[in-house]
Amino acid sequence: MENYETGEIVDTLISNYKNDEHIEEIEFNSQPDVDVIHEITRKLLRIVFPGYFREKNFKFYNLSSYINSLIEDVVYNLEKQIYLALQQCPECLDKNGVVGVTVKEKTEYVIRTFLQRLLVVREYLATDVKAAFDGDPAAFNKNEIILAYPGIWAIAINRIAHELYNLNVPLIPRIMTEYAHSKTGIDIHPGVTIGKYFFIDHGTGVVIGETAVIGEHVKIYQGVTLGALSTRAGQMLKGQKRHPTIEDYVTIYSGASILGGNTVIGKNAVIGGNAFITTSIDADAKVSIKNQELDIKTGTKKEVVQDENWFYII
Amino acid sequence: MENYETGEIVDTLISNYKNDEHIEEIEFNSQPDVDVIHEITRKLLRIVFPGYFREKNFKFYNLSSYINSLIEDVVYNLEKQIYLALQQCPECLDKNGVVGVTVKEKTEYVIRTFLQRLLVVREYLATDVKAAFDGDPAAFNKNEIILAYPGIWAIAINRIAHELYNLNVPLIPRIMTEYAHSKTGIDIHPGVTIGKYFFIDHGTGVVIGETAVIGEHVKIYQGVTLGALSTRAGQMLKGQKRHPTIEDYVTIYSGASILGGNTVIGKNAVIGGNAFITTSIDADAKVSIKNQELDIKTGTKKEVVQDENWFYII
Amino acid sequence: MENYETGEIVDTLISNYKNDEHIEEIEFNSQPDVDVIHEITRKLLRIVFPGYFREKNFKFYNLSSYINSLIEDVVYNLEKQIYLALQQCPECLDKNGVVGVTVKEKTEYVIRTFLQRLLVVREYLATDVKAAFDGDPAAFNKNEIILAYPGIWAIAINRIAHELYNLNVPLIPRIMTEYAHSKTGIDIHPGVTIGKYFFIDHGTGVVIGETAVIGEHVKIYQGVTLGALSTRAGQMLKGQKRHPTIEDYVTIYSGASILGGNTVIGKNAVIGGNAFITTSIDADAKVSIKNQELDIKTGTKKEVVQDENWFYII
Repeated sequence: MENYETGEIVDTLISNYKNDEHIEEIEFNSQPDVDVIHEITRKLLRIVFPGYFREKNFKFYNLSSYINSLIEDVVYNLEKQIYLALQQCPECLDKNGVVGVTVKEKTEYVIRTFLQRLLVVREYLATDVKAAFDGDPAAFNKNEIILAYPGIWAIAINRIAHELYNLNVPLIPRIMTEYAHSKTGIDIHPGVTIGKYFFIDHGTGVVIGETAVIGEHVKIYQGVTLGALSTRAGQMLKGQKRHPTIEDYVTIYSGASILGGNTVIGKNAVIGGNAFITTSIDADAKVSIKNQELDIKTGTKKEVVQDENWFYII
Repeated sequence: MENYETGEIVDTLISNYKNDEHIEEIEFNSQPDVDVIHEITRKLLRIVFPGYFREKNFKFYNLSSYINSLIEDVVYNLEKQIYLALQQCPECLDKNGVVGVTVKEKTEYVIRTFLQRLLVVREYLATDVKAAFDGDPAAFNKNEIILAYPGIWAIAINRIAHELYNLNVPLIPRIMTEYAHSKTGIDIHPGVTIGKYFFIDHGTGVVIGETAVIGEHVKIYQGVTLGALSTRAGQMLKGQKRHPTIEDYVTIYSGASILGGNTVIGKNAVIGGNAFITTSIDADAKVSIKNQELDIKTGTKKEVVQDENWFYII
Repeated sequence: MENYETGEIVDTLISNYKNDEHIEEIEFNSQPDVDVIHEITRKLLRIVFPGYFREKNFKFYNLSSYINSLIEDVVYNLEKQIYLALQQCPECLDKNGVVGVTVKEKTEYVIRTFLQRLLVVREYLATDVKAAFDGDPAAFNKNEIILAYPGIWAIAINRIAHELYNLNVPLIPRIMTEYAHSKTGIDIHPGVTIGKYFFIDHGTGVVIGETAVIGEHVKIYQGVTLGALSTRAGQMLKGQKRHPTIEDYVTIYSGASILGGNTVIGKNAVIGGNAFITTSIDADAKVSIKNQELDIKTGTKKEVVQDENWFYII
């Protein structure tokens, strides 16, 4: 290796860090650890779907000792991460409606409540697996849904993260759902409320914003956005309901966008592919885009035209 | 760490597992191992593109011993996974048209046939790499295609998984293609039949359903769906041709959706960006959406309007 | 394990490799190592955002020795990778406008210049984090932007890769941005020029082509394409400006496509969701798609119709 006199670069970088543009955290280890939170998330998936995902480093033949070991591991690591996250949020230090508890008290309260909620998460996930199997003719069996469907993976992580979000834990729920987003292309904010029997097929490009509310037996496809009408006011909109409400038994086909905090899609409605919707839709309605006007030139032979203006892309 | 009395939670979880909502697999190790199948998939990519991806743990300077070692490793692990998968599917136990062979016999038959088919997979992949290089002005050389193009990665895994799908192996082909989907955003079902010289550029959001058939020299871009017209009948549609046929030399630009099992896109046709097509298109045709009506307000200064209704998003 | 006589398969494969369809690289270790480049990329992110991402294998309590160790590690590994990449590109061997330097000279020149540019990368990234926080009502604090926003991750890797692209290094910049694409669904070519205060929200499906130019304070959402009008001429178009120019303070909502090398979106313009634009737009304009014609059937009860033609998807 050449001698690159890296010492000078290091000195310049370090004095640059001290400018404090807020993209450095000089007090090491004060931030939650993204890798540890990913590992916790994978372990939580093993707890809610036991027997589907293997341990790499050791084997268990006794269910009780296996689950006990997983839970202790999750608690040990999650406790530390929650503690670190709560230190960034004095207004998060509430417990049973009372504010002003210590970070330690709040952390313990979160862990206890969260562990109990895992049973509810499992109850909901069982309905999601059933909805995916019943809804997809390409599904071989329910094992395939758990082993190979990105939608169930994203929904499982979202249901877990949503419990921490409800307990007013900052940063960690969002790191968990971003992990799901990275693996599946499905971006559901941990704030979203989702009913039973939720099915997302394929899922790449799905975006569901923080204040959306989704009923039971809802089915959505790839590229669907449940979004806000403009967020140009930025942080001024914090806390407002900016995203739509989807009632029970609604189906939303691929590429559709449904926008706005006052938009309600009524029970049983079906929203066709690529529809762009900014007002409420009645129950039982079927909405589709009118036949798109297409320009069809019946061709002779193809030739390469460099500047043609009518079909497109990178 | 606090004492969280995890014993009680574990007991409750374990009794909850026994409710058998089919999201647990109490007989450990009866499911195929997703992580092992991902590792097999990476090794198969090293076999079909030798010399492009490095070994972490050891080095070889002799091609023959390197490939031999990779093949033995793949066979050893794949054999076990196929065995586990076939145990879930009595109707998959066929061999040369005869049904009712044992799981062991079928497993051996699959391995032998699959190894031989790797040569054909390589023959097809060589054409795909050529198509990508010829088709993309941003490509530097063919090495770049193999090292950094998500499309070739997704196609390679699909061609490998499709061989196992054709041999009537359940679960594993789908786990392989979902691995590709997770890494590339390209979701191609292992059932899809794809001709030579296939090029997918960018690829995020591409969805190609199980019964689609794709000819030679086909080129598609990000966000293209080759899908079904409604799947509300769910499992009742199993086995039907639900997805379109794309003939040779067709180009499909980004965001286009082509839907339905009877839809055929004829030879040489070009489908423009965002077109939404549910009927067949003649050979040589050029299809584009008619100029979208745009509402252009020449602006004064921007101002923040919170409830404006005409531009959008989360 | 069965005896599968793998020797025969290996022999056939090896003789097949020698057909040289250019999908094998029999001279091992002549290609850049994708895994090593990913690891370098992760270490560079630790250098530009110090304190946010942890080391797994060791701990540092002294900032200067930590950064020094990271820089030395990056230099050691990057030097080798750049050397391998440059060997494939005689026309890349320029330095300060003079062509014909050796691979070794060029490699040293690249490393020295690149290290100094990291300060500029950090200066730009500080503005991007600020833009993300100010622009998103769901953001909790700036730490959340760095820890959990895919847009900032993709932009950071792009800004790093762009420095190597500008220094005329082949392959490596593209491997870096494809790593970001795989993790985030955001596909930005390393050739793109991007001003300060760039914000990508959600981001899945974003595609920005090699010759695009983006001003300051630009904000884009998921599914946006900044692309070319047809690339059917393939390699013949190399070097031409094929992708649009986006001026300062432009906002582009989700799913919009803006295409063509002569297309300029003027300062302050706002492009509405799903707009499809192939000509220039004036400064301060607000562009939206005219109300999409929707077909709304007020429903009775849902029934399963297998061949219905009006809503769609896989």
